[in-house]
Amino acid sequence: MTLTTFTRFLPILDWGRRYDRDRFIGDMIAAVIVTVMLIPQSLAYALLAGLPPEAGLYASIAPILLYAVFGTSRVLAVGPVAVVSLMTAAAIGNIVDSGTAGYIAAALTLAFLSGVMLLTLGVLRLGFLANFLSHPVIAGFITASGILIAASQLRHILGIEAKGHTLIEIATSLWYHLYAVNPVTLVLGTSATAFLFWVRSGLKPLLEKTGLSPLFVDIGVKTGPVLAIIATTLAVWGFELADQGVAIVGAVPQSLPPLTLPSFSPDLISQLIVPALLISIIGFVESISVAQTLAAKKRQRIDPDQELIGLGAANIGASLTGGFPVTGGFSRSVVNYDAGAKTPAAGAFTAIGLMLAALFLTPLIHYLPKATLAATIIVAVLSLVDFSILKRAWSFSRADFAAVAATILLTLLMGVEVGVTAGVATSILIHLYKTSRPHMAVVGRVPGTEHFRNVKRHTVETQSHVLSLRVDESLYFPNARFLEDQLARYAAEKEELTDIILLFTAVNEVDLSALESLEAINTRLRESGIRLHLSEVKGPVMDRLKRSHLLQELTGEIFLSQYEAVEALANTKASVP
Amino acid sequence: MTLTTFTRFLPILDWGRRYDRDRFIGDMIAAVIVTVMLIPQSLAYALLAGLPPEAGLYASIAPILLYAVFGTSRVLAVGPVAVVSLMTAAAIGNIVDSGTAGYIAAALTLAFLSGVMLLTLGVLRLGFLANFLSHPVIAGFITASGILIAASQLRHILGIEAKGHTLIEIATSLWYHLYAVNPVTLVLGTSATAFLFWVRSGLKPLLEKTGLSPLFVDIGVKTGPVLAIIATTLAVWGFELADQGVAIVGAVPQSLPPLTLPSFSPDLISQLIVPALLISIIGFVESISVAQTLAAKKRQRIDPDQELIGLGAANIGASLTGGFPVTGGFSRSVVNYDAGAKTPAAGAFTAIGLMLAALFLTPLIHYLPKATLAATIIVAVLSLVDFSILKRAWSFSRADFAAVAATILLTLLMGVEVGVTAGVATSILIHLYKTSRPHMAVVGRVPGTEHFRNVKRHTVETQSHVLSLRVDESLYFPNARFLEDQLARYAAEKEELTDIILLFTAVNEVDLSALESLEAINTRLRESGIRLHLSEVKGPVMDRLKRSHLLQELTGEIFLSQYEAVEALANTKASVP
Repeated sequence: MTLTTFTRFLPILDWGRRYDRDRFIGDMIAAVIVTVMLIPQSLAYALLAGLPPEAGLYASIAPILLYAVFGTSRVLAVGPVAVVSLMTAAAIGNIVDSGTAGYIAAALTLAFLSGVMLLTLGVLRLGFLANFLSHPVIAGFITASGILIAASQLRHILGIEAKGHTLIEIATSLWYHLYAVNPVTLVLGTSATAFLFWVRSGLKPLLEKTGLSPLFVDIGVKTGPVLAIIATTLAVWGFELADQGVAIVGAVPQSLPPLTLPSFSPDLISQLIVPALLISIIGFVESISVAQTLAAKKRQRIDPDQELIGLGAANIGASLTGGFPVTGGFSRSVVNYDAGAKTPAAGAFTAIGLMLAALFLTPLIHYLPKATLAATIIVAVLSLVDFSILKRAWSFSRADFAAVAATILLTLLMGVEVGVTAGVATSILIHLYKTSRPHMAVVGRVPGTEHFRNVKRHTVETQSHVLSLRVDESLYFPNARFLEDQLARYAAEKEELTDIILLFTAVNEVDLSALESLEAINTRLRESGIRLHLSEVKGPVMDRLKRSHLLQELTGEIFLSQYEAVEALANTKASVP
Repeated sequence: MTLTTFTRFLPILDWGRRYDRDRFIGDMIAAVIVTVMLIPQSLAYALLAGLPPEAGLYASIAPILLYAVFGTSRVLAVGPVAVVSLMTAAAIGNIVDSGTAGYIAAALTLAFLSGVMLLTLGVLRLGFLANFLSHPVIAGFITASGILIAASQLRHILGIEAKGHTLIEIATSLWYHLYAVNPVTLVLGTSATAFLFWVRSGLKPLLEKTGLSPLFVDIGVKTGPVLAIIATTLAVWGFELADQGVAIVGAVPQSLPPLTLPSFSPDLISQLIVPALLISIIGFVESISVAQTLAAKKRQRIDPDQELIGLGAANIGASLTGGFPVTGGFSRSVVNYDAGAKTPAAGAFTAIGLMLAALFLTPLIHYLPKATLAATIIVAVLSLVDFSILKRAWSFSRADFAAVAATILLTLLMGVEVGVTAGVATSILIHLYKTSRPHMAVVGRVPGTEHFRNVKRHTVETQSHVLSLRVDESLYFPNARFLEDQLARYAAEKEELTDIILLFTAVNEVDLSALESLEAINTRLRESGIRLHLSEVKGPVMDRLKRSHLLQELTGEIFLSQYEAVEALANTKASVP
């Protein structure tokens, strides 16, 4: 293996050799800011995933380090994120009860499976698979997940028990337990939520008015959760609110991330394999979108297949150090970027910061109320909720709208796994339906040019014995028979027809079914005394056709351009063989 | 409703009004020939489906009549066919034991469900769904089914018990029972098989040499099974072979088709719903292929949606008169056509012939050995086995080959239902994979024309500051990100680039994901000082783009033709906004 091969799989060899003091300072500043922001976020997402709070810290340490070694993005911050944490809770909650040792072990297994899948996809260079999640489906899924997450956290604000993985289950469960609302928790929770909303909507403009640089405004806003945590923790400690039924985080071990081994029970693996695949794909798509957005700003390139390897390593790392499934998060990466992180070393410094927190700060969060963590989650995810995609899709195309609407509805009503699967399936089915009845246009020559356009949309010249038909789709099995039907119709409509030219500019593929249909069309047209010509056949399609008998049997010719075809046929009333 | 509306749903009103003596004679002759051929075939396919022999006759009577009323093909003969009978046996055999009353009831339910599905698809005009079974997949499926059918009939030739729905199951079961081979049955069975093979391969050329017309040659060949039946029945009766363990058809009721009611047990229906759907689609595809082939010879048109209604009515008829799932059969329809059938009335006369057979001929087949019926099935289906599709697909495209190979292998190893589903799934996945990495070609002008082709395949003219890129695929979610990647690559490669023209001749669709990618590309190119132009955008795509912001934000222009685009940009080194 040459050094280039090494750098392909280990991007660290690339940037590591050029590391200097300037980059170190940038990275260090970014790391401090991100660490402060990550502590509450990690604790909160562990809560969302149904895990003890320290799991959130652990899930941020090894993954960040491993991504720094294998990932291609300079600024992506890997760790627990909202949607993946929700999917983790949905996947494991169906199998094991939250709060048990089995639940924690299942989370490790889920992270491990997801890591292995991501690594495998990366090594096999199958990153393109993520493209089957269309933009509108992702937007719909994120919006619906945000609503589900917010709904699932309401119980912490109300101080009651409630569970469920769909909006109806959650709402029913909340309603059923509403009698037990804890008033002190409710006051704490709503105050924290209100404060955090104010930080986003009120404090930000205020800070901006003071003329602070955008970076500091952002830092001010991002410290909101830390302030809320400090204030409510002090309140619970000072007024002994835990005795009044306020749920608190409680004892958190003071320790570096432990070495853990996921369970390899075949039973557990078979139950988690599909959720792990969905989590891998969703996580990858979320992460790569963030990475590409930030990379584009600095004209850096992201290699999707290498990203799979980086995320795979991060998840395997999470599974071996007491974590749970992780991916590149939007808000933390943006902060990292804005704070001036220059290289993945910023991530390594953040990991060190979080290790120190796990070692020394955990006693301080003993009295932290869960309601505060729930408030930070709710405020964070509601910013993800954006129904404008429905409007956008509706005005652009009904097909896209159908896919988004199906994704949102099914995610809310049937849960995250059904929702995202339905979104992908709907997108694919709609595509197949559309290509199965392709648009065809009779074309004529735009006067004075060699250019041909639809007779219905442009003023063009045609000849009565020649029909020029542009086929606006690749020809393959779903539309092969449709083509036969359409050509039979055109041939039957015009008595004087002697030549049909199929304009193949938009035919990007001809498969065996379509080839057989073309042969059948050629034979039938010959029997009707009509010659079949092709024009503007593309290279790859022509190569394919040359491997068949069609070209020998074709009654007409193959023309390089439609103009040549029409010129050649202009004056020769055909004498059909 | 006008008469036209009626004739749409009742084609009989069209040909019925023009019926005359010539047509009557043609129809009558065809009916006699087809009846003689159908009697052994119907009995045999009932055996294949695991049903009593009379069910085969019943399944040929009402369906033929109902198809004559509702169908559009003049010559299609509807009744039990090999592949559908095999699928029936596979579907019911998993649920009920053959030979029980429950088995017969389940066959009625299967026919009823299939009939309702076909009718529904027809009324909703969803006939195009059948197109998702590609030609190669069908060819592979028919070949594999032929092998499975022949294997499943070997037990009757050997005179042993054996069952199974996959090649391995059947082979294992045969091997396990091989000790019990009945020698007399074996002699009868192999003689009948050998005779029937000789009729096809030896007698046919012999008759052709005598100078008989092709029709009579064909009739001679088709009476082969009748001769085999008469000879072996007489042998069993004369030498009392039934006492020596030769399995015979036994007592068959002398009766017109009985009125029957399928079972509507929700449990049974839920178990049969998927098999019924697969049988409906396979049956429809087989039938429509036959109908279209024969109609093309006489320039008649087949309406796929009306065919669904005809076949739906036929199957519901079968379910109410003691039958089982039916469809249009190839061999019987060809005989019908060759024998000169003019209108669907030929089918009605055939039905009358079969009724007479059911009333009066059934005592004569008491001693008919099952081995003879098995021999007729084996000889018939082995003519369906044709591995040349593998070779054809291989030489044309690896993708088609993969779909055929998957269909054949999985049908043989996992059974008909898995096989056909896998074939469709493979075809779709391969298509999605191919469109997800579209071909793109840098194009230049063919000197002296307004025509543009791939720079790698043709000698063309280009300009160093303008890149003309033809995108050879519709732009939609699976390839949206690929387009971004490719354009980033092209933009990075050429320093002097000021203008990129995307040639949209082959872009038949732009969905919301692709629109967002185009917007992102436009923004990124602007930041690199490169203008983005589009040319030859089709009407439907342009309509779609007009509903977005892309056209306002586009840094370049939209040109009607690529020639105009290049002319306009030839002398103006761009001054990017």
